[in-house]
Amino acid sequence: MLLWLRQYRRSLLAGDITAGIVVAMMMVPQGMAYALVAGLPPVVGIYASILPPVLYAVFGSSMTQSVGPMAIVSLMTGAALAPLADPGSTLYIVLAAQLAFISGVILLLCGVLRLGFMANFLSRPVISGFSNGASILIIWGQVTPLMGATWPHWHLPSLLLGLSSLLLLWLAKRYLSHLLQACGLSKTAADVGARLAPMLLVISGIVLVTWGGMDRMGVQVTGHVPSGLPGLNLATSGAHWRTLLSPGLLIAFIIFLMSMSAAQTLAQKRGEKLHTNRELLGLGAANAASALSGGFPVTGSISRSAVNFQAGANTPLASIITAALLALALVAPTGWLALLPLPVLAATIIFAVANLLDWGTLKMAWRYDRSDAVALLATTVGVLVLGVEAGVVIGVLLSMGTLIWRASRPHIAVLGRIPNSEHFRNIERYEAHTLPDILLLRIDAGLFFGNVEAVTERIEEELRGHPSARHLVLVLSAVNQIDSTALMGLLELNATLAKRGITLNLAEVKGPVMDRLRQSNFLKQMSGKLYLSTALATADLGGRPT
Amino acid sequence: MLLWLRQYRRSLLAGDITAGIVVAMMMVPQGMAYALVAGLPPVVGIYASILPPVLYAVFGSSMTQSVGPMAIVSLMTGAALAPLADPGSTLYIVLAAQLAFISGVILLLCGVLRLGFMANFLSRPVISGFSNGASILIIWGQVTPLMGATWPHWHLPSLLLGLSSLLLLWLAKRYLSHLLQACGLSKTAADVGARLAPMLLVISGIVLVTWGGMDRMGVQVTGHVPSGLPGLNLATSGAHWRTLLSPGLLIAFIIFLMSMSAAQTLAQKRGEKLHTNRELLGLGAANAASALSGGFPVTGSISRSAVNFQAGANTPLASIITAALLALALVAPTGWLALLPLPVLAATIIFAVANLLDWGTLKMAWRYDRSDAVALLATTVGVLVLGVEAGVVIGVLLSMGTLIWRASRPHIAVLGRIPNSEHFRNIERYEAHTLPDILLLRIDAGLFFGNVEAVTERIEEELRGHPSARHLVLVLSAVNQIDSTALMGLLELNATLAKRGITLNLAEVKGPVMDRLRQSNFLKQMSGKLYLSTALATADLGGRPT
Repeated sequence: MLLWLRQYRRSLLAGDITAGIVVAMMMVPQGMAYALVAGLPPVVGIYASILPPVLYAVFGSSMTQSVGPMAIVSLMTGAALAPLADPGSTLYIVLAAQLAFISGVILLLCGVLRLGFMANFLSRPVISGFSNGASILIIWGQVTPLMGATWPHWHLPSLLLGLSSLLLLWLAKRYLSHLLQACGLSKTAADVGARLAPMLLVISGIVLVTWGGMDRMGVQVTGHVPSGLPGLNLATSGAHWRTLLSPGLLIAFIIFLMSMSAAQTLAQKRGEKLHTNRELLGLGAANAASALSGGFPVTGSISRSAVNFQAGANTPLASIITAALLALALVAPTGWLALLPLPVLAATIIFAVANLLDWGTLKMAWRYDRSDAVALLATTVGVLVLGVEAGVVIGVLLSMGTLIWRASRPHIAVLGRIPNSEHFRNIERYEAHTLPDILLLRIDAGLFFGNVEAVTERIEEELRGHPSARHLVLVLSAVNQIDSTALMGLLELNATLAKRGITLNLAEVKGPVMDRLRQSNFLKQMSGKLYLSTALATADLGGRPT
Repeated sequence: MLLWLRQYRRSLLAGDITAGIVVAMMMVPQGMAYALVAGLPPVVGIYASILPPVLYAVFGSSMTQSVGPMAIVSLMTGAALAPLADPGSTLYIVLAAQLAFISGVILLLCGVLRLGFMANFLSRPVISGFSNGASILIIWGQVTPLMGATWPHWHLPSLLLGLSSLLLLWLAKRYLSHLLQACGLSKTAADVGARLAPMLLVISGIVLVTWGGMDRMGVQVTGHVPSGLPGLNLATSGAHWRTLLSPGLLIAFIIFLMSMSAAQTLAQKRGEKLHTNRELLGLGAANAASALSGGFPVTGSISRSAVNFQAGANTPLASIITAALLALALVAPTGWLALLPLPVLAATIIFAVANLLDWGTLKMAWRYDRSDAVALLATTVGVLVLGVEAGVVIGVLLSMGTLIWRASRPHIAVLGRIPNSEHFRNIERYEAHTLPDILLLRIDAGLFFGNVEAVTERIEEELRGHPSARHLVLVLSAVNQIDSTALMGLLELNATLAKRGITLNLAEVKGPVMDRLRQSNFLKQMSGKLYLSTALATADLGGRPT
């Protein structure tokens, strides 16, 4: 904890200060925008960007992670709270903090119980499908604010403002970095500068409203943003704890998942090691702190963390500087923020989230492994049709489903002897001859509850096709584990075969698997023997070449 | 479909008739008892034993499966309906049929979509833990009817009747078969005869009540059992379809799981092949038929199917005979069934379900694989504390959890050269020397989303311990699959290592894995080369023995 602070060197300071300032300027529009996505007043997004990164700096393990509001988590927050209160109402704001508290406690508990391995419950295609579906929902939700009215109506000044904002953001993304480089900035500095486009746009929007009187033309603005720091207390509504428990669980899972994928990308770039369980503690503390300071669920954002890293952040001090600047911004007069036009904010949301859309994974999975591509598409459709919460559950089931489905078709090779040699190979790929008395099967998968039924069924099938076999030899050179379910399956197979006068033998059992088997009574009950190699097995069992 | 009927031979008839009669005599008390467990009038249990086995005979694939009411499925039915209606009320009976219909349709759909592999979603320890928890709940639920009053009160005549029934059932189990063998019956016939003890007990109970006037002493009896066959119509309550959808899904899963484990045990004994997807169709049709004929959710019961098999059943004709006999029993006067004392029925339930309790799996898992034992116990506790529905979800999560947890600690061996040879072995188990420029790692697990993070982390760790390495060779002799997530992980590893001047090479890639990799651009992007063997890789990469 705080190891980075104890080892802090002066030389790291410049990078941390630059990154702190850049991320603060990115955080103002982003925090306000994602609060709106969650159905909350914009200032709540700033509240959620002050204490959480400080707590994460103390307990978390990533050096460059930027913790705060994040689009998909905001969408889930909105989905969880919508049935319970009116968006923006006092109860709604209280419930948002309560949800952050519940998620925080769950994350802390998972950290204490060392459940970090849970990040591996979803495959990347499924995460990509989930995040595409959620992004589309977010974009769809911003169409009304962008147009200033509900489709099929629109409010022309709002729509023009929104569309030109989108155009400017696109131009900035496409050309601003090149322009800044042409002006003499380094590539990194120019890239970082280009990321400030949303902040510039927001300021221009405020200027336009103030001097152009666009609010009088009917363009909606954020309205009063209260000045001053958030109060420290956990306002709660006792009635809704139970109702929020299950969305809190799902949001905690997504908080962890999103933060881990952001942190991992950066850790890989910096050659650092992440401590999964400390990540859980850091995120848990951050969300509990968000709840205590009037915020809502927060997590590490990949886009913001990348900017933090690019802008030179060396340690979590960068995030603490960001937090301090945001606190200062709230203490300073905030009247000017009241005139921020909503179509501009909607444009920044749409633009940011559109960049999260990822078609590369789909394309790659489609070529490499069709079943992963199907799982990806099904998750997206699930999120769009059934909503973002059901989407998480569908994602877990589909990840596990592909796993079990693949396991239910294990690769098993019938081995034969290569003529005039002691080598045994898959008869489908080599010119190898089987032996009349002996059936040699190489199982190319660890044996566990997901495939043991399929494996024993396949063994029975091969035995039916090889009726003269008196000895079955399972070659376990590629079997890395045998779980309890699989062990019971093998015991039953052994008993069934023994009744039919066929012995069950094992060959080439790996060290760790053997260590395990010695702790069971399998070796005692086995009708056949244990062999070091396939060649030894055939020699001993009297297999003559055909 | 009905293949067994087209191939029917006269010689099979005797066995089918005997089994049909024996199972019918077992079904009367069991059907009534399990209807009570579900909170339904006893006659509903008989209704659910007539059409379902006939439909299963047409669509299912097991030859000896006995489909009808089953303890755990009844418990789940009761748990799903209790919040919606008063047990035994007309609405409750309608909802029970509706639940069977929903489960039936889900099972049929899964069958059509060929989702039979879903039976592999739970490990055996978790199934054992679930069924132990459910059994304890069922036994606990029968304590009140056994004692004739709610604990801590009791009704002495009821309690005496209940306890002596339990004692008689225990004595019958322990000695009746031996006694019948001493009377000259064959062992099989004696075993089957002993299974009729509950029916004999029920008849004795009725006789006692009738002649001993026990009902006037306050012993509760089943009451009026309506005569005649069930009407064929699907009485439904439109309001509750949505509410019953999620319990219907869980019950469908358990119906399939329980039936599969019963059918598999018997198929193995008979050397038959089960068609998982046809099982789904058979069970789906059976439940839809149960719904149409005033029944409730049904499944294959392991205890009843074993008796069916033991009594000589050769084909589903045995089940059709059972169904016909039960239909006859309902057409005949049923007045005598009204005086069946409830404590006796409670005793038969407790005794039957106590026999389902399985401690062997726990003992075995505790010795062989502690994590499986923990999952078993956690599932039992989950069922007892959170209920039987939450128990199924917990079971799935724990099965998957152990899988992912195990995958997150993959076995990876650092290989070294055995001096004066071209053999490479795990340096922890053999006297083998590593090479200064080359790090050889053998990955002993298929690469998928559940372990790719852990694998790459482990690779980075080994590289830190081997800083002179310029070439990393992954020996994939034990890798049977690489899914999309793992492929992306390898691509990222390749890019990171390339930046640090380390090449990534692969050796001993298996045929099916290679076929897949060729469809991706991994081989093109890989910084190093592909080698047929570890020896070739070290020779080419210039590894000199230290």
